Amino acid sequence: MSYLGVGVSPGNVPVYHGSDLKVVDRRVRLAELILRTVICGLALLAAVLVATDTQVKEIFTIQKKAKFTDMKSLVFLVVVNGIAAAYSFVQILRCVVSMVRGSLLFNKPLAWLIFSGDQLMTYMTVAAIGAAAQSAVFAKFGEPELQWMKICDMYGKFCNQVGEGIASSVFVCASMVIVSGISAFSLFRLYGGNKGSKTSAGW
Amino acid sequence: MSYLGVGVSPGNVPVYHGSDLKVVDRRVRLAELILRTVICGLALLAAVLVATDTQVKEIFTIQKKAKFTDMKSLVFLVVVNGIAAAYSFVQILRCVVSMVRGSLLFNKPLAWLIFSGDQLMTYMTVAAIGAAAQSAVFAKFGEPELQWMKICDMYGKFCNQVGEGIASSVFVCASMVIVSGISAFSLFRLYGGNKGSKTSAGW
Repeated sequence: MSYLGVGVSPGNVPVYHGSDLKVVDRRVRLAELILRTVICGLALLAAVLVATDTQVKEIFTIQKKAKFTDMKSLVFLVVVNGIAAAYSFVQILRCVVSMVRGSLLFNKPLAWLIFSGDQLMTYMTVAAIGAAAQSAVFAKFGEPELQWMKICDMYGKFCNQVGEGIASSVFVCASMVIVSGISAFSLFRLYGGNKGSKTSAGW
Repeated sequence: MSYLGVGVSPGNVPVYHGSDLKVVDRRVRLAELILRTVICGLALLAAVLVATDTQVKEIFTIQKKAKFTDMKSLVFLVVVNGIAAAYSFVQILRCVVSMVRGSLLFNKPLAWLIFSGDQLMTYMTVAAIGAAAQSAVFAKFGEPELQWMKICDMYGKFCNQVGEGIASSVFVCASMVIVSGISAFSLFRLYGGNKGSKTSAGW
């Protein structure tokens, strides 16, 4: 049997109608594993970049130190990225175990758990980026109407590193969006079984 | 035939295996319609609350006027809520038409379109709330380390109305999250058909 014919139905599988489904399933699981690995790495990178970022400035013999805890949104960003990295690590283990055992995900409670977790993580990441990006805009451009000054003029190096952290988080977020799409697919296709008696070649 | 027996399988449907599916489908569509109506109303409310919010303050004979365009995140919030209201209105029409015609959603391109639209709207709403909430925190508590002052001490009435707008947006967002779950369900269960030949009573 050819494993090269991806997307082509072999046609000699006796019991299982869903040979296409199996091929798609293998691809989907591989994509999920890759994305989760990317998320884990980039989330960790973002958290480290922001959390280790400091800059000391001397103004008239007074030393002022900028650090990420000065801004709540950066603390939120670090925490969310940390949670995302840990969560993805657990999910990677789960993916690997399920790939080694070769079992398809036909377990509804587990599918619901993964779906809910992914949804929660994705929305948290989006919210954290929204808040951090807003803070970054204030820091970079100030808000003249409110007399909030551009602190990035003072702490240039600090701001750049935070910017890199936010950029990394944006990639985390984009990957999370795709992953939560995949987990929605894995969950809700379990609810499509009844249609099969009418249109068994539904793909 | 009884239409009261929601959740109970009538058992006298000859061709269609999925009589449970039909009942669930009716409920899901009703829930979707209600949620979309709530979203449309609350998003409009949020947009109007924030957009019409102004406060004039006199400081040493200089008149200062606070309005939502002073803060980019509030402009973003108004725009996103406006789009959400318009989008939901179109979706309400679609729901009503599909309920009147009694057709189930077995059209994959349309399901993909609705799913994508809902995902986009949900993430935009979450990001807008993240940014607006961050701005609100700065406005309310200031950021002493950065010498950003608490402008809500000056514009109390303005801030309260913005707060109401954000609260309304939070409800919009929560409803959008559920709606995008529903549209994910509607889309991805279309991909579960192949399993039917093995477990036709899969519910």
